[in-house]
Order: sequence, then C-alpha cells, then structure tokens
Amino acid sequence: MSRSESARDAHSLERLVFFSDAVFAIAITLLVLEIDVPHLPEGANTADFGSALYRLLPSFFAFSLSFLVIGRFWIGHHDLFGQITRYSGQLLFPNLLYLMAIAFMPFATAFMGANLGKFVPSLLYNCTLFVTAVLDWNVTRVGYKSHVMADTAVRSDYARSAVLIGATLLSVAFTWISPQYSQLGMLLVPVGFRILARRERAGA
Amino acid sequence: MSRSESARDAHSLERLVFFSDAVFAIAITLLVLEIDVPHLPEGANTADFGSALYRLLPSFFAFSLSFLVIGRFWIGHHDLFGQITRYSGQLLFPNLLYLMAIAFMPFATAFMGANLGKFVPSLLYNCTLFVTAVLDWNVTRVGYKSHVMADTAVRSDYARSAVLIGATLLSVAFTWISPQYSQLGMLLVPVGFRILARRERAGA
Amino acid sequence: MSRSESARDAHSLERLVFFSDAVFAIAITLLVLEIDVPHLPEGANTADFGSALYRLLPSFFAFSLSFLVIGRFWIGHHDLFGQITRYSGQLLFPNLLYLMAIAFMPFATAFMGANLGKFVPSLLYNCTLFVTAVLDWNVTRVGYKSHVMADTAVRSDYARSAVLIGATLLSVAFTWISPQYSQLGMLLVPVGFRILARRERAGA
Amino acid sequence: MSRSESARDAHSLERLVFFSDAVFAIAITLLVLEIDVPHLPEGANTADFGSALYRLLPSFFAFSLSFLVIGRFWIGHHDLFGQITRYSGQLLFPNLLYLMAIAFMPFATAFMGANLGKFVPSLLYNCTLFVTAVLDWNVTRVGYKSHVMADTAVRSDYARSAVLIGATLLSVAFTWISPQYSQLGMLLVPVGFRILARRERAGA
Repeated sequence: MSRSESARDAHSLERLVFFSDAVFAIAITLLVLEIDVPHLPEGANTADFGSALYRLLPSFFAFSLSFLVIGRFWIGHHDLFGQITRYSGQLLFPNLLYLMAIAFMPFATAFMGANLGKFVPSLLYNCTLFVTAVLDWNVTRVGYKSHVMADTAVRSDYARSAVLIGATLLSVAFTWISPQYSQLGMLLVPVGFRILARRERAGA
Repeated sequence: MSRSESARDAHSLERLVFFSDAVFAIAITLLVLEIDVPHLPEGANTADFGSALYRLLPSFFAFSLSFLVIGRFWIGHHDLFGQITRYSGQLLFPNLLYLMAIAFMPFATAFMGANLGKFVPSLLYNCTLFVTAVLDWNVTRVGYKSHVMADTAVRSDYARSAVLIGATLLSVAFTWISPQYSQLGMLLVPVGFRILARRERAGA
Repeated sequence: MSRSESARDAHSLERLVFFSDAVFAIAITLLVLEIDVPHLPEGANTADFGSALYRLLPSFFAFSLSFLVIGRFWIGHHDLFGQITRYSGQLLFPNLLYLMAIAFMPFATAFMGANLGKFVPSLLYNCTLFVTAVLDWNVTRVGYKSHVMADTAVRSDYARSAVLIGATLLSVAFTWISPQYSQLGMLLVPVGFRILARRERAGA
Repeated sequence: MSRSESARDAHSLERLVFFSDAVFAIAITLLVLEIDVPHLPEGANTADFGSALYRLLPSFFAFSLSFLVIGRFWIGHHDLFGQITRYSGQLLFPNLLYLMAIAFMPFATAFMGANLGKFVPSLLYNCTLFVTAVLDWNVTRVGYKSHVMADTAVRSDYARSAVLIGATLLSVAFTWISPQYSQLGMLLVPVGFRILARRERAGA
C-alpha cells in the first residue's frame, strides 16, 4: 500500500468513527425529547405539580436506563474501534445496521416509559436491546473477518459481546415473567464486565 | 501556494466534511422522532398494544428505508470527499444544497410513513430521493470543474451517480403504477453498485 | 509561549470551532422538525393530500430560506475562524451569544412558516436575522481586539458584516411595508458578497 | 508505555472529548424545540400575535438562561479536559453521568418555562443545576484520583466547582423564598469566576 493510500484509509476510518460517535451522541441526547413536558392550568398547586412529576417517574426511569445502555454501547464501540487498526469498506454496512438499532432506541424507550410494566412495550424494548447487542457483535465479527483487527483483541471483544447478548436475552426472557422488572437482566452487564476485567488483568 | 495556505485549505476541507457528516448523522437520527409514540389508556391489554404497534409498521418501514438511503448517500459523500484532494470555496454552495435535500428527508419519510400507499406522499418521497441524487451528482460535477479531484475518480463517481439517479427516477415513475411498491426501484442501487465494483476490480 | 502551551491553545481553538460547527449543523437540521407532518384520514384522496401539501408551502419556503441563511452564516463563521490564528478565552462568550441566536432560528422559522405574511412573526424573524448579524460582527470585533487575527483579515470581515447587517436591517424595515415580501432584503446578501469578492480580486 | 499505546490513548481521550462536546452541542440546541410554536387562527391580528409571543416570555427566559448555563458548563468541561494530560478508562462512567445531567436540562428548562414562578418546576430546575454541578466536580475528582491531571490544575478546578456548587445550592434554597427569582443565585457564577480569575493572575 502506498503512503497516500494509507493516509486516506486512516482518514476514512476516522470519518466512520466520527459519524458513529455523532449518531450515539444524538440518540442519547434525543431521549429527553420523548418525555412530554406537563403543562398545568394556571391555578395548579404544588400537589398538582408533584403528582404530574410523579406520573413521569416511569419516563425518567426509562430515560436513565437507556442513557446508561447507549452509553455502555458507545464505550464498547469505542473499545472496538480502538482495536481496529486499518480501514475496510466492509465495515460500513454492518456498522450502519448497528447504528440503526441505536437510533431506534429513543422510540423503544419512549414507548416503554409511557406504558411501564406493560408486556408489549417491555418486549419491544428488550428485543431492541438484544438486536443491538447482536448487531454490535456482528461489527466485531466483520472486523475480524476483514483482517483489520488483531486476533488477541477479537477474543476479548467476543467475551464482551457474549455478556451483552446474554444479559439482553435474559431481559427478553424475563418479560414473560414480569414486564416491569424484566430489565433487571441488564444488571448482569456490569457484573459480567467486572469479571472479564479481573480475568484480563490476571492473564496479563 | 505557500505552506500555511495549504494547511488552511486542508483545515477548510476538513471542516466542510465535518459539517456535512454532522448533518447526515443528525438527519439519520432524527428520523425516529417522527414516529409517534402510542400512549394507550390505563386498561389497554396486550392485543391493544399489539395492534398499536401493527398500525406503526408503515412508519417502521419508512424509518428503515430512509436510514439505509441516507446511510448510502453518506457512504457516497464519504467516497467523493475521499477523492477531493484540495479545498475549493466553490464546493460550499452545491454541498449546502445537497445537505438541504438530506435534511428534508425526515419530513418526506414521516409524511410517507403516516400515509403509506397513498400517491402524493409516495411521490413527494420519491421526488426527494431523485432531487437528492441529482444534487449529489452536482457536487461531483463542481468538484471536477474546480480541478480539486482526479480525472480517474470523476469517472467512477459519475457511474455511481448514474446508478442513483436512474434508480430514484425509476421509483418516481413507479409511483404512477403502484405508490405502495414504488420504492422497489431503489433495489437497483445495491445491484448497480455491485456491478460497478466488479467492473472496477476487472479494470484494475 | 512554551511549545506545549501553544499545542493546548491550538486544541482549544479546534474544540471551539468544533462545538460551533455542531451547533450550526444541529440548528440547520432541526428546521425540518418544526414542519408538522399532515396525518390525513383513511379515505383522503389525491386532491386532499395535494391541498395538505399546498398549505405547507409557507413552511417549505421558511425552511429553505432559513437553511440558506444559517448555511451562509456558517460559511461566514468558517471564513472568520480560518483567519483567527491563535486561541483567546475572550472569544468564548461572544461566540456563545452568537450561537444562541443561531439556535433560536428554528423557532423564528417555524413561527413565520406557520403564519406567513403576518406582521409579528415576520418582524420576529427579521429581527432574529438582524441580531444574528450583529452578534456575528461582534465575534470579529472581539477577535480583532484580542489580537488573535490579522489586521488585513479584519477589514474584509468587517465589509462582509456590513453587508449582512445592512441586508437584515433592510428586511426589518420592509416588514412595515409588506411582511410577506420583507425577506427580499436578504437578496442583497449574495449581491453584496459578489461585489466584495470582485473588489478583493481587483485589489489582490 | 509503548509509542502506539500512547497514540491510542491520545485518540481515546480525543473521542471522549468529542462525544462530550457533541452531547453539549445537541442539548444546547434542542432547548429551542421545547418552545411551542403558536399557530394562530387565520383572522388573528397583530395584538393577538403580540400576546401569543408575550405568553412565551417565560419560555424565552428559560431558553436563554439554560443556554448560558449549559454554555458555562461546556466552557468548564473544556478547561477541565484541557488539563487532563492522559487518558483513563475510569473517566468514562463519571463523565457519562455528568452528560446525563446535561442531557436532562432541556426537560427541566421546558417544565420551568411552561410554568414559570411555580414551586415544583423551579425546584426541579434548580436541583438539576445543583446535581450537574456536583457531577461536574466528580469528573475532576476522578481525573485527579486517576493521576491524569496536574496537581496545580486540580486546585483551580476545585475552586471553580465550589463556585458552581455554591451558586446552584443557593438557587435551590431560594426556591422556598421565591420560585420566580430563585435563579438569581446563579448571578454568583460570573462574580465568583471573576474573583478566581483575578486571584489567579495575582498569584501567577
């Protein structure tokens, strides 16, 4: 590869990362727009305002959860692309599909937040998380197949993907038992990541 | 050209690319905001929620289609500016017009998604795609005329533009036959791009 | 100034430019969100859809105008910061005020688009443009006073500011004569810029 | 640390800063979307439009205040990360929490703007500011503990955090006295920062 080709490749990789970062940042910040702002009549008192806010608690919960989830996926994307050493055009489409799942999150979040504890909204939300986790893994897979990332990196990325896919799948399964508490499956994510980090340090 | 002028030009080109990337990323992520979140009454059951989601299927279809279309245009913009080697102020206005068409996509998408299969919304959507393809080609044309891109690059960019203009024009024409299936014309895009890629490899 | 201080300054300038670019890109892309998507009843025919679109023509006009106006201001910001050679913390606040005016544009645009030809919405829109032009000039002024831009650059930036302030002021004045056509004053912008460009080439 | 590891760290830090900047820019620009655009009936006259705008004055006030507040927090983030010299993965989560508070600002702003002078909306707004100030300080704290910033920088950052936490806490306390004027506590911010700047120059 010539020098200028390599410079162009570095630039292409940078643009791809930048575009992805922007989509993550926009999706995470749009979450708040889906919370309807209460407009109370002129004579409303403190109790009325308090109960208006109280009715929004599910939306606040959904906002916080999705903010952390998208943030966690962003950190994962960050780690993944920190290990991709060269550009490959083959990454474009799988990355786009992954970003589509991320961009869909504000809808799934708002639908769940407006109807917390209901089966269909919880199922849609949990399935969105699961599909996002699978599409995330798919980017790693394509990066590995296109020979643009180190073999050692792939192993730890696959382990992280396994944690995410497992936790989101558990949330999907939990929906049949209790829609309201189904997201508890996601608590496996920080636990799983801590175990992986410990094992990595032990191995290093 | 002096050294510092050349550095300033590189910086101007970078800012132009960055600004365009940001508009693409925002437009693609805003698509989801146009899908109205169903708020069902307290007593709604699973069947009610299911049918609320079912009624949104056209919006989901429009969201996915536009996500892929804007993504495809972004990849094209990416390829085009990967071949522009110097900055020219003449690129600013044509690129702005092109971005205006991209920024209009969320409206056209929402109008079609809310009224799928209707003639006027489908026609507006397909015409938006067609105008976007023409304005995309126009950026290439101006880049070529201002001598900021290689002659060899122009040929392959023109071929790609021809595929996009042809496919979107076909979708416009299909609207008179079947508004609902008129976007099938867009299937020509991946087919056409695959043929171009094969021919390029054969030529190289 | 030490080497690392100079590197940190270059980085600060870059972040300032990046932040501004992002605000411009978001404001310009949000414009479309303020156009209400028509949801027609199931039995609506082509004529109904046609007239629904026809009623949106003022919004489309406002969208296109504001897109070009924000785009023009962005190009100006681009030129200005292309001539700022060093970072100064004094630029932060004036630049923030300028961005506030840019970020307010989607509201002014939507208010005018929804009530085209009315006095108050047109006045608010034209005043927003005028204030934006003044705040734009103010950034140049502070950049000059803080000794971070060349004297030669200031002269041409002031000429450009004069064109923008003059044209927007004319639009404000025109509002009393005809709210509907008051934006015609903005046509002075491309004319004025062309004259400035010609004079610059003649002088060089 | 090897050379390539150090390059990757610089890149990680840059991406973290970029992502944060994008969230700030989006949140600050979304503020305007929460102001409802008045749609007046066909026969509305100038007085009707005037009073429609007049009723929006609280929203304009809330928009301007939050724009300056988010802008001020952004400048602080800018200063903080200008002093962080190395990347640490430990910054990711505290920074994400801080950005969550920033991303929540458009909701708190809109709720206050739509119900100006009411106790609950003012309290929510002031508490959001206070929590944001605390989370901002927390990023500095973690940056210091992870040994990625100079000791001298920490002292001035802590002083700035103290000003922000103090001023926002004062606004929270003022809410019980007068919800409408409680934000006056924020006037301490520019005053406090001016004193800090003077002292720093005196010390240097």
